[in-house]
Amino acid sequence: MSLRPTLDFLLYDWLKVGQLGERSRFSDHSRETFDAVLDTCERIAREKYAPFNRLVDTEEPRFDGEKVILPQATHDAWEAYAGSGMLGAAQDYAIGGMQLPYTVEAAANTFFTVASASIGGGLLTVGNANLLLAHGTELQKKVFALNEFSGRWAGTMCLSEPQAGSSLSDVATRATPDGADFESDPFGPRYRLKGNKMWISAGEHELTENIVHLVLAKIPGPDGKLVPGTKGISLFVVPKKMADAEGRLTGERNDIALAGLNHKLGWRGTTNTLLNFGEGKYPVRGAPGAIGYLVGKPGEGLRCMFHMMNEARISIGLAATALGLAGYYASLDYAKNRPQGRPAGPSGKDASQPQVRIIEHADVKRMLLAQKSYCEGALALLLNCARLVDEQHTGTPEAAEEARLLLEVLMPVAKSWPSEFCLEANSLAIQIHGGYGYTRDFPVEQYWRDNRLNMIHEGTHGIQAADLLGRKVVMEGGKGLTLLAGRINATVERAFKRGDLAEYGNALAQALQKVGAGTRAAWSTNQPGDALANAVPYMQAFGHLVIAWTWLDVLQSVPPTGGTPADEGRRRAARYFFHYELPKIGAWLRVVETRDRTCADTPEEAF
Amino acid sequence: MSLRPTLDFLLYDWLKVGQLGERSRFSDHSRETFDAVLDTCERIAREKYAPFNRLVDTEEPRFDGEKVILPQATHDAWEAYAGSGMLGAAQDYAIGGMQLPYTVEAAANTFFTVASASIGGGLLTVGNANLLLAHGTELQKKVFALNEFSGRWAGTMCLSEPQAGSSLSDVATRATPDGADFESDPFGPRYRLKGNKMWISAGEHELTENIVHLVLAKIPGPDGKLVPGTKGISLFVVPKKMADAEGRLTGERNDIALAGLNHKLGWRGTTNTLLNFGEGKYPVRGAPGAIGYLVGKPGEGLRCMFHMMNEARISIGLAATALGLAGYYASLDYAKNRPQGRPAGPSGKDASQPQVRIIEHADVKRMLLAQKSYCEGALALLLNCARLVDEQHTGTPEAAEEARLLLEVLMPVAKSWPSEFCLEANSLAIQIHGGYGYTRDFPVEQYWRDNRLNMIHEGTHGIQAADLLGRKVVMEGGKGLTLLAGRINATVERAFKRGDLAEYGNALAQALQKVGAGTRAAWSTNQPGDALANAVPYMQAFGHLVIAWTWLDVLQSVPPTGGTPADEGRRRAARYFFHYELPKIGAWLRVVETRDRTCADTPEEAF
Repeated sequence: MSLRPTLDFLLYDWLKVGQLGERSRFSDHSRETFDAVLDTCERIAREKYAPFNRLVDTEEPRFDGEKVILPQATHDAWEAYAGSGMLGAAQDYAIGGMQLPYTVEAAANTFFTVASASIGGGLLTVGNANLLLAHGTELQKKVFALNEFSGRWAGTMCLSEPQAGSSLSDVATRATPDGADFESDPFGPRYRLKGNKMWISAGEHELTENIVHLVLAKIPGPDGKLVPGTKGISLFVVPKKMADAEGRLTGERNDIALAGLNHKLGWRGTTNTLLNFGEGKYPVRGAPGAIGYLVGKPGEGLRCMFHMMNEARISIGLAATALGLAGYYASLDYAKNRPQGRPAGPSGKDASQPQVRIIEHADVKRMLLAQKSYCEGALALLLNCARLVDEQHTGTPEAAEEARLLLEVLMPVAKSWPSEFCLEANSLAIQIHGGYGYTRDFPVEQYWRDNRLNMIHEGTHGIQAADLLGRKVVMEGGKGLTLLAGRINATVERAFKRGDLAEYGNALAQALQKVGAGTRAAWSTNQPGDALANAVPYMQAFGHLVIAWTWLDVLQSVPPTGGTPADEGRRRAARYFFHYELPKIGAWLRVVETRDRTCADTPEEAF
Repeated sequence: MSLRPTLDFLLYDWLKVGQLGERSRFSDHSRETFDAVLDTCERIAREKYAPFNRLVDTEEPRFDGEKVILPQATHDAWEAYAGSGMLGAAQDYAIGGMQLPYTVEAAANTFFTVASASIGGGLLTVGNANLLLAHGTELQKKVFALNEFSGRWAGTMCLSEPQAGSSLSDVATRATPDGADFESDPFGPRYRLKGNKMWISAGEHELTENIVHLVLAKIPGPDGKLVPGTKGISLFVVPKKMADAEGRLTGERNDIALAGLNHKLGWRGTTNTLLNFGEGKYPVRGAPGAIGYLVGKPGEGLRCMFHMMNEARISIGLAATALGLAGYYASLDYAKNRPQGRPAGPSGKDASQPQVRIIEHADVKRMLLAQKSYCEGALALLLNCARLVDEQHTGTPEAAEEARLLLEVLMPVAKSWPSEFCLEANSLAIQIHGGYGYTRDFPVEQYWRDNRLNMIHEGTHGIQAADLLGRKVVMEGGKGLTLLAGRINATVERAFKRGDLAEYGNALAQALQKVGAGTRAAWSTNQPGDALANAVPYMQAFGHLVIAWTWLDVLQSVPPTGGTPADEGRRRAARYFFHYELPKIGAWLRVVETRDRTCADTPEEAF
């Protein structure tokens, strides 16, 4: 089973994405046009990404003092990707887009990440340009966003700083007005930025003519001091090279210096940088300080930045899932071809018989089915989230509002669950390969290394968990959680109407009840310190609930018996999840329900 | 908290290792002599291992066509290690040993693996020499074993072959008598070996003057065919360079060629090789074929090899544990020093307050306590197993027999549990470091890579699980399991006598009952295919039971309240295990009890 049939099933049979063509925005679209996009991406991924995944891992980005050198393969991959039109695929026809549903865009991008997450795609560039479309001035859109959608320029997101990783309220980059006429620049209020930005992916490279940085910084108050907290944060667009109002490079280099490349455990094909803004290494227009233009209003930088957070988190979830799937496919192939040992039981003891292929061993099947259950379950959830994004943009006002609420609650799970369990899938893929899986002659060790990033970036596991239990399930009077519970109950109801799914329906209803009780118990003292002491176990249980719901919903597009081998595979993967995984929520919820403070109260000196 | 106080507590306060001095074999020993050994190892590890852990990861072994080049640091470390006398520490005074208890030897070796597992230690050399002491001829002992204990030569274990990784019955290396006088060689019956051996650690290097390979091979029958299965396997000692009866090199090179170095995910400081025996590259004494001498009787090779299996598996468990501890110490240090964010709750919202160190966050404490609970629990179990090895060797016949039985049942867990959960600890250590943990500027990513090996070598997870459920808990009428249950119940009884431990006593008694019921249910159809379909979940539950027992037993050497901060740390780590971990066994046992065949019955085409 490869990726394409799985995507076809989820998109068309389960999510009925073909019906999106009935909406006015997508009225030129149909399964045929979607298939054409999937075909193109599948082909480019096969030709330009997959063959070079190990190469970009080995030939890490390096800095020659002036330029960052990347392998030729990375240049070729970017060129093919930009050439496919995927960077602007979801945009309006008026600005050269294809008005493709986000669901199809997200599905199609999966081909690239399965082939080589490490090379990297257009995630940051598209997110950057989308943000400018939503909050930028007309000229910022025209010059920066449109050149990003075309692939002529690339984009970054500059949030973290060395002293403030997850804690954005402690951003210390300063933006001061650039001269008396700073408000009359055609690009918007012009500032000089000074500060250091850490963990900036694709922060420096020669893949594109220019790089468009979106930078969080603080404008000092009249007393020269920065406002503490997130309220003081503003957003700026800061190009690596200066451009005029027609998007032509002026030949001036902005004052942004590469302070270092980060040498990572994995995902080595993508540059990750420490950038110094405005340290004076490249004075521009006669002065030090990186020139940046305000985007949106002062003090609203974080709100603007969060505008694109859902799609960024879906992308991370999908990257984790794609890496999981890549390991699943590799270990399935290995298991089908590697002879080793004999079956358990008396017949297996006859060593004069030839060895069997390892896929015939029950424990290898277990490791394969676990991978399939994790990764295809995660893929279904993420495509469902993508479909909700489309609903938010093109549904009726009521449907759009429901989609917004559901996304709020699902986002922490959609980002965190795949990053934890598809990483576990990669470990199982190594295990199936035995000693060979521990060598760099097989791809699975790299998938595992690459995937380890996903629990860290775009909000760590701990941050996602605090967001879920601390905010999302209680926000707006618990409206989002109630809505999700309604959707889960609807799936349970439909399951009861089909006899073969009643067992799962019962299990899911019980799990929902347990998670609901856990949520209430966690907050019963109304003390965040009590509730959040076990936010991560809560999120693990919540995630398992959501994936079980997803599998049960998927099964309703699968016949009770018979059908294709793929149907049997989906029934087995769902059964694996209900039998082996869902019962785990009891242990996770136990500490939530009791507001267990074993960890929280451990004194520092006891460690 | 560093390693030494933890070892001191476990060895002296918990295991009462000081009392071993009362036994005749150890009568020259006392806590003072043990401490001297620990001091020496701690110092050498600090000076010769820890500073070079990253270096040996970066400067991988390479083959220049003639020799394998290792960093100078590795030579220096080996020299210091051999010079310490640790290779022969447990041996008789008569052959230059110190008659040190194995428990102390194992504990002392932990310093080296915490400092740098990657550089590698003397595990294989000692195991090799011990095996020769048990099964070799006098001359084999004198020439090969003694030169290994002195560190002049090193040893390997050559079991796997490319076509037969875990399946030793499929070993295809042939050993044919070397000439008409083959039985009259002073070293024992002389054979010519031909075949390929895969995954041979330290298979080629220049650290020592010679390398002593112990090789499994088959002697063809009169029809020239190899006997199928493990019965046909014999054991041979095959030196890299030929020696005379005085242990002097004769200047002849044996016909063993390095066919390749394996390029691994981690543990890169240690060479791992594919060796070709007898391919004719280095004809010796006028003919191709590697010259080897029979050890023990023909057909008893595997039995001889398994002689040392307990100590080898304890060593792997300890390596996994040591890597887990190394990550714990690194992340604890980081958490104590890294300022980031503010506490949950209203007081935390005041961004004008300085950031707190991340050890003040509940979720970071959770990740630290999980690591401590996993790694110190595993360390305690492994030292207890080592103590059982000493009991087997020096206890009364009855105590020795009980120790043998307990070790049979505990070995799969002692090897597998740390390799799974101390790896998880390493992942938590990365997570605490955030983005920095994903870079090679911090040591934790290397620990995680190094540790991933331990679920694979010396019997994979699947093999350990099949050994546990398929053999160890049912062997000799379930005698081993009954004995272990008795020990667990004794710990429970003692816990009930101390009011503060009653909650844990109840939980442990229930867990024991559940695992017992699961064992019976798994075998209730008497079909290995049913029982073993979920052998790994069974082993996970069994392992958690054993670690919970270990923690409860450890707690009986800790006061109920008060005491030192370390006492509080042990109480907290045990509580973590009982509250957060032990409840997980329900989900694992559920599929065991129901003999769930979801995975086993999945048809190949459904994947």
